[in-house]
Amino acid sequence: MSDFVSHMEPKLISWRQSFHSYPELGFMEYVTTYRLGKVLEGLGFTIHLGEEALERDARLGVPNKTELDKHELQAKAKGVEESWLAKMRGGLTGLVATWDTERPGDHVAFRFDIDALPITETKDTNHIPAKEGFHSMIDQTMHACGHDGHMTIGLGVASYIAAYQSILKGKFTLLFQPAEEGGRGAKAMTEKGWLDNVDYFYSGHIGIQSLPIGTIAATVDGFLASSKFNVTFSGVASHAGMHPELGKNALLAAAVSATNLYTIPRHSDGITRINVGKMVAGSGRNIIPSDAFLEMETRGETKKINEYMLTEATRIIKAAAGMHDVTCEITPVGITEEMICSEALIPTIIEACKSSDYIKEVLPVAKVSGSEDASFMMNRVQQQGGKATYLLFGTELNYPHHHQAFDFQEDVLPIALDAFIKIIEGGSGIE
Amino acid sequence: MSDFVSHMEPKLISWRQSFHSYPELGFMEYVTTYRLGKVLEGLGFTIHLGEEALERDARLGVPNKTELDKHELQAKAKGVEESWLAKMRGGLTGLVATWDTERPGDHVAFRFDIDALPITETKDTNHIPAKEGFHSMIDQTMHACGHDGHMTIGLGVASYIAAYQSILKGKFTLLFQPAEEGGRGAKAMTEKGWLDNVDYFYSGHIGIQSLPIGTIAATVDGFLASSKFNVTFSGVASHAGMHPELGKNALLAAAVSATNLYTIPRHSDGITRINVGKMVAGSGRNIIPSDAFLEMETRGETKKINEYMLTEATRIIKAAAGMHDVTCEITPVGITEEMICSEALIPTIIEACKSSDYIKEVLPVAKVSGSEDASFMMNRVQQQGGKATYLLFGTELNYPHHHQAFDFQEDVLPIALDAFIKIIEGGSGIE
Amino acid sequence: MSDFVSHMEPKLISWRQSFHSYPELGFMEYVTTYRLGKVLEGLGFTIHLGEEALERDARLGVPNKTELDKHELQAKAKGVEESWLAKMRGGLTGLVATWDTERPGDHVAFRFDIDALPITETKDTNHIPAKEGFHSMIDQTMHACGHDGHMTIGLGVASYIAAYQSILKGKFTLLFQPAEEGGRGAKAMTEKGWLDNVDYFYSGHIGIQSLPIGTIAATVDGFLASSKFNVTFSGVASHAGMHPELGKNALLAAAVSATNLYTIPRHSDGITRINVGKMVAGSGRNIIPSDAFLEMETRGETKKINEYMLTEATRIIKAAAGMHDVTCEITPVGITEEMICSEALIPTIIEACKSSDYIKEVLPVAKVSGSEDASFMMNRVQQQGGKATYLLFGTELNYPHHHQAFDFQEDVLPIALDAFIKIIEGGSGIE
Amino acid sequence: MSDFVSHMEPKLISWRQSFHSYPELGFMEYVTTYRLGKVLEGLGFTIHLGEEALERDARLGVPNKTELDKHELQAKAKGVEESWLAKMRGGLTGLVATWDTERPGDHVAFRFDIDALPITETKDTNHIPAKEGFHSMIDQTMHACGHDGHMTIGLGVASYIAAYQSILKGKFTLLFQPAEEGGRGAKAMTEKGWLDNVDYFYSGHIGIQSLPIGTIAATVDGFLASSKFNVTFSGVASHAGMHPELGKNALLAAAVSATNLYTIPRHSDGITRINVGKMVAGSGRNIIPSDAFLEMETRGETKKINEYMLTEATRIIKAAAGMHDVTCEITPVGITEEMICSEALIPTIIEACKSSDYIKEVLPVAKVSGSEDASFMMNRVQQQGGKATYLLFGTELNYPHHHQAFDFQEDVLPIALDAFIKIIEGGSGIE
Repeated sequence: MSDFVSHMEPKLISWRQSFHSYPELGFMEYVTTYRLGKVLEGLGFTIHLGEEALERDARLGVPNKTELDKHELQAKAKGVEESWLAKMRGGLTGLVATWDTERPGDHVAFRFDIDALPITETKDTNHIPAKEGFHSMIDQTMHACGHDGHMTIGLGVASYIAAYQSILKGKFTLLFQPAEEGGRGAKAMTEKGWLDNVDYFYSGHIGIQSLPIGTIAATVDGFLASSKFNVTFSGVASHAGMHPELGKNALLAAAVSATNLYTIPRHSDGITRINVGKMVAGSGRNIIPSDAFLEMETRGETKKINEYMLTEATRIIKAAAGMHDVTCEITPVGITEEMICSEALIPTIIEACKSSDYIKEVLPVAKVSGSEDASFMMNRVQQQGGKATYLLFGTELNYPHHHQAFDFQEDVLPIALDAFIKIIEGGSGIE
Repeated sequence: MSDFVSHMEPKLISWRQSFHSYPELGFMEYVTTYRLGKVLEGLGFTIHLGEEALERDARLGVPNKTELDKHELQAKAKGVEESWLAKMRGGLTGLVATWDTERPGDHVAFRFDIDALPITETKDTNHIPAKEGFHSMIDQTMHACGHDGHMTIGLGVASYIAAYQSILKGKFTLLFQPAEEGGRGAKAMTEKGWLDNVDYFYSGHIGIQSLPIGTIAATVDGFLASSKFNVTFSGVASHAGMHPELGKNALLAAAVSATNLYTIPRHSDGITRINVGKMVAGSGRNIIPSDAFLEMETRGETKKINEYMLTEATRIIKAAAGMHDVTCEITPVGITEEMICSEALIPTIIEACKSSDYIKEVLPVAKVSGSEDASFMMNRVQQQGGKATYLLFGTELNYPHHHQAFDFQEDVLPIALDAFIKIIEGGSGIE
Repeated sequence: MSDFVSHMEPKLISWRQSFHSYPELGFMEYVTTYRLGKVLEGLGFTIHLGEEALERDARLGVPNKTELDKHELQAKAKGVEESWLAKMRGGLTGLVATWDTERPGDHVAFRFDIDALPITETKDTNHIPAKEGFHSMIDQTMHACGHDGHMTIGLGVASYIAAYQSILKGKFTLLFQPAEEGGRGAKAMTEKGWLDNVDYFYSGHIGIQSLPIGTIAATVDGFLASSKFNVTFSGVASHAGMHPELGKNALLAAAVSATNLYTIPRHSDGITRINVGKMVAGSGRNIIPSDAFLEMETRGETKKINEYMLTEATRIIKAAAGMHDVTCEITPVGITEEMICSEALIPTIIEACKSSDYIKEVLPVAKVSGSEDASFMMNRVQQQGGKATYLLFGTELNYPHHHQAFDFQEDVLPIALDAFIKIIEGGSGIE
Repeated sequence: MSDFVSHMEPKLISWRQSFHSYPELGFMEYVTTYRLGKVLEGLGFTIHLGEEALERDARLGVPNKTELDKHELQAKAKGVEESWLAKMRGGLTGLVATWDTERPGDHVAFRFDIDALPITETKDTNHIPAKEGFHSMIDQTMHACGHDGHMTIGLGVASYIAAYQSILKGKFTLLFQPAEEGGRGAKAMTEKGWLDNVDYFYSGHIGIQSLPIGTIAATVDGFLASSKFNVTFSGVASHAGMHPELGKNALLAAAVSATNLYTIPRHSDGITRINVGKMVAGSGRNIIPSDAFLEMETRGETKKINEYMLTEATRIIKAAAGMHDVTCEITPVGITEEMICSEALIPTIIEACKSSDYIKEVLPVAKVSGSEDASFMMNRVQQQGGKATYLLFGTELNYPHHHQAFDFQEDVLPIALDAFIKIIEGGSGIE
């Protein structure tokens, strides 16, 4: 059935370039969701939007109302129908597309992430999107992590399911997840129950590890559990020359937090990480700073180790506030769990991909680092007895992910699509 | 000669309201300088502009070119003549107006500061400038420290000198100083030599201490020597999850600086102060922060004690940079010296003001805090054998200086003018 | 009556050398108290010992039982009678000697401190006590602050009162105070009520300021209020290589306390000081430190400013403990108040001393620094309407106070005695 | 040949109890070395003592002369012959015993560590050494890590070699190493060249992991490379109330070091550890502390990672000293490398031990943590093409290593001896 993939190639390229040129940040993917939805609707999928797709309160790091309003207006201007927009308002972006063959069989779920990054894309003509004119039209927003490709692969999988519906069995759930960056969206789809009773779950990523084009990995090892959160400290301003003793110094509380957070002991059970990535404090040179703000994160090799880091960090931050007599507020803005791919899927995937004309080699496992919130979905599936994995799709990269000149080889799109098709065919998805 | 002051009152009010409605920040007082200059030129003063007025390299905290360019364009749009603007370009604002009676006598200098603050003035109708429609027309800029009044008094003194030139003797130098806020402008006028060979120097401030209207103080005690400077730390970014060991953490260098700067020992010879008023560091949650920025200041009861603070602070900051393997750059942006008013002037001033119909009481000394860069000028005058003082002019204040609703009683303008006139008359300024 | 003083000189020298050779630390002055008491008893004074002299629970920094027991045994071996020792047991050293002339008149109190320092005296033969053989016989204990001289002067004053009882009026209270070092004993005598209803209070110090021999100061200015306390942090040990995450790090709590204590803002109302003078933490290189100990102090220009320092310090220490999840205990071990001498006594003292053959000059005031717990007594007297002062007695010093080679000129002893006698005579103490 | 081991059992018990009752700290094992030497000499081994055994300058953490002198005197009193003591003076303890069969064959080396710990052994009668009367006779010194057992096993191996010399081939080197605790002695033997040209190296430990008696492990995994060092900071004392600005605060330098050392980033290549285990600073409450002392260590999963930790730590400590204007000195006192056992030895050892009546099970590998300086010797052997491993000998433990009630089952002694004998026999050691 690689004829199908070969036939899809021009469409894949076209979708990808279209998504690439109109990137949207997490929970503001109004236009992107609409475009995806219209294609999926056209293919015959049932579309679940807004609160049907996401548990509202399980979202993390939702932008403020001003930001949301602005992007909703832009979406309207871009032609998003009001009936669609109404459901998405307030940052309820992303969608779930379902297909029931009504034949007995497994329930298979795929997850594709759809959000972009706050990076201004380079206009350098060595950068193919710039050279070929499909670079980001939006200032300070860019698909610099390949999610444009992921969505495209998702539409490819959906097209395959629609085209081959007569020979497929069981149920298919395609999760087009918002706000993967920062670990903000997966939990909200998981809490909505979409992963309950799923037998097989697949997600994956273009690039990450430097695998050559044509090589894929059946599983990954190394994604860390993580917690992302902001801290605000509020004290009292005072003139630093006249009445220093009347101030309550929020900057010092933040500085003391920052230095002491690194004293959280290494954990003998596994890897830990902590980072205070951003600090903004104070208003002017001669004023005792009354306000301070931190953006930070913890990570752990397991959920339990990450919880240890988070517990320690929380205590330290609160103590630093108390030390300088200021108040503090800690706001979670993202969370991921550790990811343990089902090893049982490795031989199945290797076997299934043998017949692919696109895939040259399937590695059993690739070593990765960083964090991925697909872990939430995978853990839910596995807890209920299902199997789950996360694949890597090799591509040459001239620049790393999250770089303003990030780009991937478009050849990876049919490869990844073919991998998912072969998995469906080789697994229990085909009658 | 109070008839003169009484006659000037409407003009004082008008000038003050005009200045108030068009505030300009330090080294960008293009319109203000032009307006002052045109009046002074009209009165017959010799005007010294640009590099004639200021030592270019002795200015501190000059805004960047983008800012300067923008305000120069605005000044042009506001009608400032190109011949004037040409001299002021690049932040060479303020002016010196001189008058030589060509009769033997003392050289008397007055200093009036002319810059505004980066504060958005309240539009509350309880605030008289708002109620009467002369509030700031410029967003985020406001005369919230009374310099609009100071300039006005300066034009009043100039008017008096012009009007009474026939009975005056000696020489008069009126310094309309830019960028007093942050201690940035006085040094540049002093270094230009304007205070050399001055016999008597007078400056002063509306408000500060809560003296009632009609009360003035002949001297002040308590202004601290100070140094204002910025610090930038530059390190290396790295992904906090994948390669924390490759980062060079500028945020930590800044945080460690901030906490350790307070460990500079108290000094047994007098008062010290230190403040890190602002910190901005890092770019994002999951990146080891490669950049950090501090706005800070030290103060000391004497220049020597302040130098002790500055020396210690410099060493600590450099060590903090070295500790976290980042580089740092320390940029001075302001400096003041301690101010010791000439006590010998107290009886002269008290005596001179006795005949004033405006002044009810002259206190010999008022206790103040904070810092003032007129100290540079005063110290230069005193080092050369001259006498110098800094007066306070009482006014009721509903809100403190630097507050968005700061305002003073306009009645203080003729009072202050009369004080300076009486001092000229009572001193050696009159034939 | 300088004949009296001249006649006393050999006795003064003898007393002083005897006290010098047998120094005892605070609250362990068993032998010293006994020797003083026997002389005073012999002179006819009423002796108040133990709980009659001191409020047991108002003492601070009492040595532990092992230390006390050891010194009580030594005292017994040195011949202190059991009836005396019984009253002093448990660190109730020092005594109050009273004399009532039973003639109407003022109640005059003098305070002399009697404790030594934990310093090993030099045996260098340039050091007079070593050369003349009256150096300390006790290892690690030395009269290095002149209290041997103070007691001697006290016995001189007592001898004078006894000798001239027939011409004196009113009442005399001589306080031989234990544990002045560290500010530990004065509060306990004050709380016992000895200063209630005192009309005039005098104390003083040999040296401190470098006044020449023969010069005295009638008052001092600059003693700071202070609080002295110890902190212990208790955490949990763990092997630093195997299980770092199981430790609760007391060393870090102490280190964070130390650095952050210096961030207590300078106070605009006056001088502040803070010092962590000693830190001992941890047991071994590869163990997470479970214990830490600090010796520290705060000071303030006034009692109120010192209380501000103490309140801030307490909060910071507790927060540092909480930050590192350890417990902490703060134990007060000393306290002094600010000292404000009664200016009204200056002319009286100057006048009284004019007739002295010993005193060449009386300065109205001497600038001092440091802290003195006589402040407790003085403040109590002044609060009840009495007058109080603290004199300085000039002497040449080759080494500063608290130095292992500290010594004073013995000529200062008759000078100081004569000053106190002249004050009694010149004041209302004589009929 | 287990008859031999069985025959040795009473001797093993006797040696062990004798060593246990007379523990000596690292580089002061004068008596221990002498006793070992006399037995080995009696067996016919060639003994290499003092500078023949150790590279003097490669020792780390040698006690100071006072300590050494004291223990040398005690050794003399204990009957150590002067000819032996002369070679060991100054901390050149431990010895190397060699045996050359003069038949071609492999060169096999064994290492046994001989030092004790600064712990006072419990006298609790539940503690077998106390109950049976062979507990430590030395206050604050105890064999609490099983080295008494290790030496005993060493003498057992030596006895075997002497007894079976006629059927053995190749050469044997027995290293009785001083000062294993703290990683101080192995480097000095290694640098002397004793491991050059060794074909097989064996060492091992009683206990560590909770293996049951009768179980041994052929290799271990997890010992970290480490660096142990002391830091002294030297500043300037000053009275904290009078002249705080004259002090150079060594306590703050130490405290800032301690907190900032934990900010060394986690390393993505593997495990890191850091610990400041001890801090002693300052002399008294009211003195700016002029001296501070740290005992600390770094660890890393590999030598390279540990070097990263050490490099970072060194920079931070020096910067902290510079920050507070004090000097610092860093003194290495111990070092270990990572230990990678030769996997090739696993099947050989498992096979060899099959015939043992003492050994029930041989695990291929046991997971350990902490650090071991036998790593130096092993790395040297492996670098030159030899094979090396470190075995564990299981025993029930009621208390962990380094505990005052630590003890092991004496049955482990013949088990360990039999393991080494079987390895000699099964390897190439037997003709």
